Amino acid sequence: MSEQWWQEVAAPINAAVQQQARLRQTRLTKPQGALGQLERVAIQLAGLQGDPAPQLQRVWISVFAADHGVAVEGVSTVPQAVTGQMLRNFANGGAAISVMARELGATLDLRDLGLAVPIEPLPGVHHLNLAPGSANLLHEPALTPQLCEQALLAGRQAVLDAVGQGAQLFIAGEMGIGNTTPACAMASLLLERPVVELVGPGTGLNADGLRHKTAVIEAALGLHRPHCAGPLDILRRLGGLEIAAITGAYLAAAQQGLPMLVDGFICSTAALCAVRLNPSCQDWMLFGHRSAEPGHAAVLAGLAGAPLLDVGMRLGEGTGAAAAVPLLRMACALHNGMATFAEAAVAADPTAC
Amino acid sequence: MSEQWWQEVAAPINAAVQQQARLRQTRLTKPQGALGQLERVAIQLAGLQGDPAPQLQRVWISVFAADHGVAVEGVSTVPQAVTGQMLRNFANGGAAISVMARELGATLDLRDLGLAVPIEPLPGVHHLNLAPGSANLLHEPALTPQLCEQALLAGRQAVLDAVGQGAQLFIAGEMGIGNTTPACAMASLLLERPVVELVGPGTGLNADGLRHKTAVIEAALGLHRPHCAGPLDILRRLGGLEIAAITGAYLAAAQQGLPMLVDGFICSTAALCAVRLNPSCQDWMLFGHRSAEPGHAAVLAGLAGAPLLDVGMRLGEGTGAAAAVPLLRMACALHNGMATFAEAAVAADPTAC
Repeated sequence: MSEQWWQEVAAPINAAVQQQARLRQTRLTKPQGALGQLERVAIQLAGLQGDPAPQLQRVWISVFAADHGVAVEGVSTVPQAVTGQMLRNFANGGAAISVMARELGATLDLRDLGLAVPIEPLPGVHHLNLAPGSANLLHEPALTPQLCEQALLAGRQAVLDAVGQGAQLFIAGEMGIGNTTPACAMASLLLERPVVELVGPGTGLNADGLRHKTAVIEAALGLHRPHCAGPLDILRRLGGLEIAAITGAYLAAAQQGLPMLVDGFICSTAALCAVRLNPSCQDWMLFGHRSAEPGHAAVLAGLAGAPLLDVGMRLGEGTGAAAAVPLLRMACALHNGMATFAEAAVAADPTAC
Repeated sequence: MSEQWWQEVAAPINAAVQQQARLRQTRLTKPQGALGQLERVAIQLAGLQGDPAPQLQRVWISVFAADHGVAVEGVSTVPQAVTGQMLRNFANGGAAISVMARELGATLDLRDLGLAVPIEPLPGVHHLNLAPGSANLLHEPALTPQLCEQALLAGRQAVLDAVGQGAQLFIAGEMGIGNTTPACAMASLLLERPVVELVGPGTGLNADGLRHKTAVIEAALGLHRPHCAGPLDILRRLGGLEIAAITGAYLAAAQQGLPMLVDGFICSTAALCAVRLNPSCQDWMLFGHRSAEPGHAAVLAGLAGAPLLDVGMRLGEGTGAAAAVPLLRMACALHNGMATFAEAAVAADPTAC
């Protein structure tokens, strides 16, 4: 592994299989293009999996939890202790992502990067405890260079574990009270757009809270912008442990040839950072949903991402990606299971000609 | 059964259970409203099923097939024989809706109202053969009063069969070459909007074909508009056998207290007609997707329908509704399976107060 492992090029896509899948879609018993995005994602998955009959039985969901020093600035309505309480809820099966993983028959993998309020060891959770959360980015870099690299590697390890278990799709989720603040700060620098165009209420700030959050992010950008020469600086100074881990996971997933389904605002910001660090990883990304968090649309545009769902979700945890998994599975089933015009003796759609 | 059975009021919704479900959503371990439309549909289904823990294991899909006399005017790119060929494809398991029904573990019920090109009896298909398709609405009413009533009753019978099998959700689908033409004509009169705002390419008309289709529909409206005093006239003169059957099915589903998930342009036009015939049935409708067919948005607006999916599908057969079933199931699983703040000992979201 080189010192900058994340710069290694992503796995190649199987263009021949992708073309074969595109041709098959024109032969299935339906008007051309009538399955819309379900055709597009089936073709994409065929190329990524190198399989003319793509499959998504084995879905892996890694949720990365961490706290954020900036939470002390009152940028969230929720106390920091909730990060750990929710991690416990994930482990006990009561959180939204726990329910969804069960419904999908997916593996739910939980990684604690570092909490501000310690909790007891939880069964099945990887407690990495890299630090008691990130530093307060209003006054100093959120992460030291060493912590940032450790978090990137922690994300990579989750992907290696997923690959070891034969996963066919990787979903990252996050839990970290206050984490729309670092994500918004990162997105502002990565996209070179003003904070006010990207900032949102997170778990539920009112108008006053939103103004305060905006001021905090703008002040932080004033401090860090002069020192940010590229995406790694942006991630280290303005991100957080779970955001760095997800960035590392996305980079590793592309290198390992594991298709990933990107969740909402936080995860998409990590995905944008990953693409800026290593553009070759972009081909391996699919997008689950468009979050109600206002900045998400801009981040998706920066990734040229076309999400499958737009149902007003803004929960995080990976839930927006998990909600899209049945559509991806349906797309695969249709691609693999429908009859062709020839097989069914149906007069071919003339628009196919 | 009265002479106009479809005017009997729909089954009542259980408002107490609906309110109970609404309250439960505020207590689940997530920010208020963070599951977006998944919260809304879980609450709606709880009220419709009268069950604080709504369930969608048993989904019933009835596909109604029929031909249209207006097809001889060249309003579709596809020959009429394809209606029967696709019905055979449904029965043989090769069509999109066949694959989706299998994936969902849903019952696929097939009803042949009347084809222009006869086919052999197909196993498992109800061949009603009411007529060799509808008459050419460019020159005469599409249906006689008797045929229209027979088709409405055929839809009702499908719902009674679904109820008899314990169905928890009813989906109607359609197959009928040329049927965006009658649907567009009906929508124009039901919504009092010009044809050009509603007409679309169907299976794939080019610009010339679209102009011709528009002219055919406008000429037909010129003939029939003076004789259309209400939705029943509109259905009979401008509809078709499968559209009347779906209208009857929606009316009956609401009367039977069976929630329904409405598909795309054709089915939504039937739903609009059903609501105009009997407004009480509207509460029982959920909407699966927004079709790429241009008129669908206007019909949905006329129904105040908020579909779950918008993924560019325009296939018919019930596929847009079927694609949304996993999201409804996920909404139920989350509603029923998530822990409350109290159960999980998570500090309550202050926005709940």
